[in-house]
Amino acid sequence: MSLDTQERFILRASCRDEVGIIAEVATFLAQRRLFIVETANFGDASSGAFFMRLVFAPDAPGFTLAKFTAEFTPIAEKWNMEWEVRDARARPNVLILVSQSDHCLNDLLYRQRIGALHMSVPAIVSNHLTCAWLAERHGIPYYHLPIDRGGKEATEARILELADTLKADLVVLARYMQILSSDMSEKLSGRCINIHHSFLPGFKGAKPYTQAFNRGVKIIGATAHYVTQDLDEGPIIAQAVEPTSHVDTPEVMAAKGRDTEARVLARAVKLHIEGRIFQNGARTVVFE
Amino acid sequence: MSLDTQERFILRASCRDEVGIIAEVATFLAQRRLFIVETANFGDASSGAFFMRLVFAPDAPGFTLAKFTAEFTPIAEKWNMEWEVRDARARPNVLILVSQSDHCLNDLLYRQRIGALHMSVPAIVSNHLTCAWLAERHGIPYYHLPIDRGGKEATEARILELADTLKADLVVLARYMQILSSDMSEKLSGRCINIHHSFLPGFKGAKPYTQAFNRGVKIIGATAHYVTQDLDEGPIIAQAVEPTSHVDTPEVMAAKGRDTEARVLARAVKLHIEGRIFQNGARTVVFE
Amino acid sequence: MSLDTQERFILRASCRDEVGIIAEVATFLAQRRLFIVETANFGDASSGAFFMRLVFAPDAPGFTLAKFTAEFTPIAEKWNMEWEVRDARARPNVLILVSQSDHCLNDLLYRQRIGALHMSVPAIVSNHLTCAWLAERHGIPYYHLPIDRGGKEATEARILELADTLKADLVVLARYMQILSSDMSEKLSGRCINIHHSFLPGFKGAKPYTQAFNRGVKIIGATAHYVTQDLDEGPIIAQAVEPTSHVDTPEVMAAKGRDTEARVLARAVKLHIEGRIFQNGARTVVFE
Amino acid sequence: MSLDTQERFILRASCRDEVGIIAEVATFLAQRRLFIVETANFGDASSGAFFMRLVFAPDAPGFTLAKFTAEFTPIAEKWNMEWEVRDARARPNVLILVSQSDHCLNDLLYRQRIGALHMSVPAIVSNHLTCAWLAERHGIPYYHLPIDRGGKEATEARILELADTLKADLVVLARYMQILSSDMSEKLSGRCINIHHSFLPGFKGAKPYTQAFNRGVKIIGATAHYVTQDLDEGPIIAQAVEPTSHVDTPEVMAAKGRDTEARVLARAVKLHIEGRIFQNGARTVVFE
Repeated sequence: MSLDTQERFILRASCRDEVGIIAEVATFLAQRRLFIVETANFGDASSGAFFMRLVFAPDAPGFTLAKFTAEFTPIAEKWNMEWEVRDARARPNVLILVSQSDHCLNDLLYRQRIGALHMSVPAIVSNHLTCAWLAERHGIPYYHLPIDRGGKEATEARILELADTLKADLVVLARYMQILSSDMSEKLSGRCINIHHSFLPGFKGAKPYTQAFNRGVKIIGATAHYVTQDLDEGPIIAQAVEPTSHVDTPEVMAAKGRDTEARVLARAVKLHIEGRIFQNGARTVVFE
Repeated sequence: MSLDTQERFILRASCRDEVGIIAEVATFLAQRRLFIVETANFGDASSGAFFMRLVFAPDAPGFTLAKFTAEFTPIAEKWNMEWEVRDARARPNVLILVSQSDHCLNDLLYRQRIGALHMSVPAIVSNHLTCAWLAERHGIPYYHLPIDRGGKEATEARILELADTLKADLVVLARYMQILSSDMSEKLSGRCINIHHSFLPGFKGAKPYTQAFNRGVKIIGATAHYVTQDLDEGPIIAQAVEPTSHVDTPEVMAAKGRDTEARVLARAVKLHIEGRIFQNGARTVVFE
Repeated sequence: MSLDTQERFILRASCRDEVGIIAEVATFLAQRRLFIVETANFGDASSGAFFMRLVFAPDAPGFTLAKFTAEFTPIAEKWNMEWEVRDARARPNVLILVSQSDHCLNDLLYRQRIGALHMSVPAIVSNHLTCAWLAERHGIPYYHLPIDRGGKEATEARILELADTLKADLVVLARYMQILSSDMSEKLSGRCINIHHSFLPGFKGAKPYTQAFNRGVKIIGATAHYVTQDLDEGPIIAQAVEPTSHVDTPEVMAAKGRDTEARVLARAVKLHIEGRIFQNGARTVVFE
Repeated sequence: MSLDTQERFILRASCRDEVGIIAEVATFLAQRRLFIVETANFGDASSGAFFMRLVFAPDAPGFTLAKFTAEFTPIAEKWNMEWEVRDARARPNVLILVSQSDHCLNDLLYRQRIGALHMSVPAIVSNHLTCAWLAERHGIPYYHLPIDRGGKEATEARILELADTLKADLVVLARYMQILSSDMSEKLSGRCINIHHSFLPGFKGAKPYTQAFNRGVKIIGATAHYVTQDLDEGPIIAQAVEPTSHVDTPEVMAAKGRDTEARVLARAVKLHIEGRIFQNGARTVVFE
């Protein structure tokens, strides 16, 4: 088969697992000459839930998302699916929040620049001025929203408003050292990713490297997770680790951890914007 | 859906990639109430080849492999598939060849015993007597076939005869330090796995740890691959690595390497007996 | 310099860090033509403690441990050292405790057999009969000490008596699923190593793989640590991890974890019997 | 002991291994109340060479490098040492060469900015204009030296002149896609580090990711090494790897490899500027 186009579309769906779902979806695509480029699915035996992600490329002219949506809706309704279809070429809007440490921000912006992260960054928000110059260099608006000025509630309202105005598909806490309120966590549910600088569930809360030092662990790590009302308890997306030893002070651990944090966060952001993650209760299904 | 059985069947197929294959196969399964438990597929854009592995469980009584085969054959012929279906509960016969180092053999037998490798070992073949006691302990026939007695040709003929008689689905060279002839490699094509104690393509041939020491590498590794006529050039299945440093002599490297070799070989054997590997020219497609 | 012998001795010492310790020890060795083969030391800036491990080889005849001890004692007293010297060729006695899972036991015995662990195993103790055959195969006495027969206190007394009688230098809990009493932990302080099947401090206590599954972590691990009165809180010696994903059930995680557990425990045992570990409060100094 | 200063000095020495070297050096330091903060040494049994690195802090006033040098020289001469002592607070001058891919350059500059790499970058040299803006952002002079303008010989002469004028302690080829002449390699011997985007000795030469794809390896890597006259054969400093699979095209491998390359190069540069590397024939001794 030959593709005269680089068009790619991502179809994501989840529903109760039954015999016949894949058959029906695949037949639907084949009838429209939509060539399946990638497919991944998972049936969770413990919950009975089914998750599916397909990437397809039209092998005939005339494809439109509107038509696809109209025609696929009856199938989705039959199986009671949560679903979406989108153009893989579109760049999701990612709003980045940061405090003073800029290693994650710097890494995300670098990857965005070279095309390793296919996204737009419409704004950077911070409770500090530290990273303003970095935003400026990349030509990205920088919103300085210190917590003391107007209080947490007002700041959060402003961030939510920005997310709304800028049509943020994702909010990334790139070492944003403020705990989101339950209300804000709720409103950003499923589209807000945080990087925690420990290998969760070890060392929740503040100063994880100091905790790690005191416990004398031999491996340190970082965890990217969706933000929920329970701090550091949200569904885990990605984790990575680094060896440490008795010679490492908490400061050295923190320095070692920077690379791991930046990489894990970038990986989680990439997985999210490519539609590879499904929430499955308190856990995630990740199609890598 | 409820499964009143633990029956599982593995369907493997490869053919030229086209629109509609997944639809047709999935529909075939759905019509027979064969519930898809696992699925993986890959279209190789560079060669146009398509690979598919499905695990399914009958959701209705009356399933037989014979009936499935008869009914699926027209589909397979239509798409010009290489294919097979098999009962996942069956234990493949794995013939193990070994020389003097027993770490891989010991590991394979341990995993077989605890059920981590779902296979039968009908015999162990060696050009030495070193591992005879280990075979005896596990109640496995041990064939001592030294090379000098009758020459390489006769020995190989005897091994092939054994593989034939014992209906070996796989022959594993678990540190068997003899180079197979082109003829034998050809005859075992696609069902003979070797473990090479280096990170191929680095350090082909003899004494890879001495080569690694002399080159001063900082990481050593092991490679499991299918055996082909070109020594150490067969399609790679799995690789793993271990850090090393200036303090490690070739002997220390070899000791470190033992774990890696045993793990990589066990992983390759597991992938093979679960039908997760496809040869794709000089490379492999591995559905993990 | 030429060594006409493979004699090797290990000198371990710890004390308060001061200017001049290394100079004095090294001079002591040089004056006796004791050639330093390996050296490692660490000054803990946070506590002021100093740790030193030296391996030396006599470059002249007439060396005896008794003479060394007599002559080194004044130096040790001057710096208020805790110290020991021992012959590296001696095999420490390692008493192994196990319950039903034999992957760690099997691995330790294998490594002992091929010389990768330079130790003697004078006995295996278990609260089950499951591993008796494995002990028998290796010609090692097996003590079946079920907990119900006489209660925990009597069992522990019997184990301590065995450790005493057999001059155990180390007691290894190789998946021994009984919690040691505070009293017993105290008596074996610094010479009892446990393997916990999670990446501590995550998932302490029972069923760590089920906990890991429920939390949805993307990496699982294992931790070898010295046993103390606080369960799963003893000084950590070694840790290792393995990736996991949404497809892995707790049973699959447990299967994946077996390799990691066996490797980490073997590493901790090796480090201990080679005198490479120092306890430093709740942490360890490990000279690898 | 209390240090009223953060002064730190690094002493590096190598010579033939003999009884008494450590004793003499440690005694020399103790007599001058130079507190040993870190120490590492290695005797290469295969060659008889000895390598030592010490970090010390003066515990009394009046220390000068000039005085130390004068007084230590007789010891160095006695043992026929190659040696140096330097102030750990000084920032080595690192001249960076780059072509078009800027991931390594960007990473080095980031680490330099946040203090993770304790160095100065007096200039960036390139045969392209691509990275000029990046240099400008960091306020670093950018020398555009295209090969065609004047030929390779003239370009190399200009680079060597720059290295000389700027007192470069190290020249880093951060994806500089020009092969240095034998003459230039010789002149920069021991102070020029290259990053090769493969796991050497696998895939030497051009397009290593395409080579890796064609060979079907399951792990890709990167290697930082000193530049010598033999291309891709210089002493290896650091290596790291990344898993790959059948779905990865050479382009995806290259994208995955970027992180690994940047990390490995940064690690090699850090090891070099902290004086942790010794060349030992065709290999390196690295005190991490």
